Amino acid sequence: YRRSGAGGGGGSAPRTVEDIFKDYRARRNAIHRALTHDVEEFYAQCDPEKENLCLYGYANEAWEVALPAEEVPTELPEPALGINFARDGMKRSDWLALVAVHSDSWLVSVAFYYAARLTRNDRKRLFGMMNDLPTVYEVISGMRQSKERDRSGAYSRGAATTTCRK
Amino acid sequence: YRRSGAGGGGGSAPRTVEDIFKDYRARRNAIHRALTHDVEEFYAQCDPEKENLCLYGYANEAWEVALPAEEVPTELPEPALGINFARDGMKRSDWLALVAVHSDSWLVSVAFYYAARLTRNDRKRLFGMMNDLPTVYEVISGMRQSKERDRSGAYSRGAATTTCRK
Repeated sequence: YRRSGAGGGGGSAPRTVEDIFKDYRARRNAIHRALTHDVEEFYAQCDPEKENLCLYGYANEAWEVALPAEEVPTELPEPALGINFARDGMKRSDWLALVAVHSDSWLVSVAFYYAARLTRNDRKRLFGMMNDLPTVYEVISGMRQSKERDRSGAYSRGAATTTCRK
Repeated sequence: YRRSGAGGGGGSAPRTVEDIFKDYRARRNAIHRALTHDVEEFYAQCDPEKENLCLYGYANEAWEVALPAEEVPTELPEPALGINFARDGMKRSDWLALVAVHSDSWLVSVAFYYAARLTRNDRKRLFGMMNDLPTVYEVISGMRQSKERDRSGAYSRGAATTTCRK
């Protein structure tokens, strides 16, 4: 059965700062693409009539909308469950922001799961490398803010803030 | 219904670096206690005959072994599911290390879920504060290493490394 750790990536768990960062960056790029370039396909796959679905990003830069792993406890932390159920109850941009925030949080949890046996200094170095990349939420909300600016001439981050902090 | 965000803590989501760190430290202290001082009670509650259980740590420093949140997507990232199913298939100390690594990963994911709208510099500052505390896994494995040293005279971290990295 597909497991989030092995899925799309193969090979063994990353152990060094550099390997964990590479894994993080690849998974992040996958999710970034799902929420930007591939967003129509991603949106369509998150059908609220289906069972509870997750968005996975893999070490080979592929993304997948899939059911959660069947075996528990899982090999790796799992992404947010049931994102499809929220899709039709909110503005599309707010829903994408919600998925982005959950995905960023999941990406960090996977990296620090792998980093459990690193020293404190190595964890600090790893975080510095991760934090130099914009989060998926920053990309998504930046895009939206640009669009809103284009439309209204005003800077706004109202709706997503309210929705995701509720 | 109990939600992991509200459970045991009440109040609204933390927004500043200081408030997110306080939330992190409190949840961490709760889980730390579950896996050390309260470990007999924690172990007993993780009955493999029950449904799939999670270990929650709350902002009021209480811990709870409970079923996952019913509503999905959840308000906050969820901890590892089904930790109880793994309990009797491995050495007690390895199982506790597995729970510790998953819990540390969850604690980081909750903090960075709250931190989604912070600036990059604030996220760096937050991580620095979090990283100054030992992880739950470091505490657990340090304790075990001391015991193993007492017993065998040798430093060892073999079993947990193999189990959690599999």
